[in-house]
Amino acid sequence: MQFSSHLLEAAVNEFSKLPGIGKKTALRLVLHLLKQPTADSTNFSNAITQMRSQIKFCLNCHNISDTDLCSICTNPMRKKELLCVVENIRDVIAIESTQQFNGQYHVLGGIISPLDGIGPDQLSIDTLVKRVEKGDIVEIIFALNPNIQGDTTVYYIAKKIKHTHIKITTIARGIAFGGELEYADEMTLAKSITNRMPVAQYVQ
Amino acid sequence: MQFSSHLLEAAVNEFSKLPGIGKKTALRLVLHLLKQPTADSTNFSNAITQMRSQIKFCLNCHNISDTDLCSICTNPMRKKELLCVVENIRDVIAIESTQQFNGQYHVLGGIISPLDGIGPDQLSIDTLVKRVEKGDIVEIIFALNPNIQGDTTVYYIAKKIKHTHIKITTIARGIAFGGELEYADEMTLAKSITNRMPVAQYVQ
Repeated sequence: MQFSSHLLEAAVNEFSKLPGIGKKTALRLVLHLLKQPTADSTNFSNAITQMRSQIKFCLNCHNISDTDLCSICTNPMRKKELLCVVENIRDVIAIESTQQFNGQYHVLGGIISPLDGIGPDQLSIDTLVKRVEKGDIVEIIFALNPNIQGDTTVYYIAKKIKHTHIKITTIARGIAFGGELEYADEMTLAKSITNRMPVAQYVQ
Repeated sequence: MQFSSHLLEAAVNEFSKLPGIGKKTALRLVLHLLKQPTADSTNFSNAITQMRSQIKFCLNCHNISDTDLCSICTNPMRKKELLCVVENIRDVIAIESTQQFNGQYHVLGGIISPLDGIGPDQLSIDTLVKRVEKGDIVEIIFALNPNIQGDTTVYYIAKKIKHTHIKITTIARGIAFGGELEYADEMTLAKSITNRMPVAQYVQ
């Protein structure tokens, strides 16, 4: 692409560094900002600078936070005895959006994946073990993606906290709502038959 | 979406104001920036603020520019007698990328479209007429999109500059390279037969 303006080129280059945004999309976004009032662009760039420079990670659960402890950890209405272990912040947002979970979280910051060079040491597993050893937690729920890496991580952590004898569960696997049986993979279907549930429990 | 951080929420909201970017994509982009060094985010937001506050529009051709006159208008190597009229800046970038045009441009800033409430007064047609009347220009090439609005605009401007008796042309319409005859619309195919060209000229 040939630009007649270096300022435009610089902005397009910065946008196209973002994942999934090519040069053409970047140009479209920059030209959109150029059409809007200057205040809009200022707000946009301020929001990003502030977010990047001021955002913190909760010292307790490693979730994203504006303060040292996140709003979930400091909320007295949430059950301290229920701990949900997730891979990343996006999973926290997804679960929070269901409004069905009233416990606290622990963000691992990744998942054990030797092929990608990610071992247990790079994840916040030590702090999780410490939290569990404190004794407040009654049940730990693993909400990790249902694949080999996820299962490995669950297995690894479960072994690490075995001595505390707390209840360890994982989110239910099965056919998704709106999914169709005939298109479900064999593994999911097989597991959903093995782990069938009483209708009385299902219609609650 | 439920966020535990207002800074994160603000950044996601700003990103999702951009065209074609929803909340989920915005979150993905923000989390990407969060993973990169702080300097990257600073560069990103600086590029946008600078672009928006310092960019100018060329006083001569209305193209985007870092200075009062754009680099194309001030380039002594480019032919002043050849003027290409385009709808917007994106078209300038597209034509410049072909490296086949060595004249100057005139950016209309839109196209006559009564349905969208855009009349000739909102476009930079007056300045185009003045440029043509100066007498330097020998040929004016219309590179507008081939639709009713484009043709209307060409017709309107052609009438306005009729008295100068300069040569008025438009970019060739026809079957695109790599296009297939059987999928071409009737209008394009009909025109490409009417305006057939000698093979000698084609293979030049």
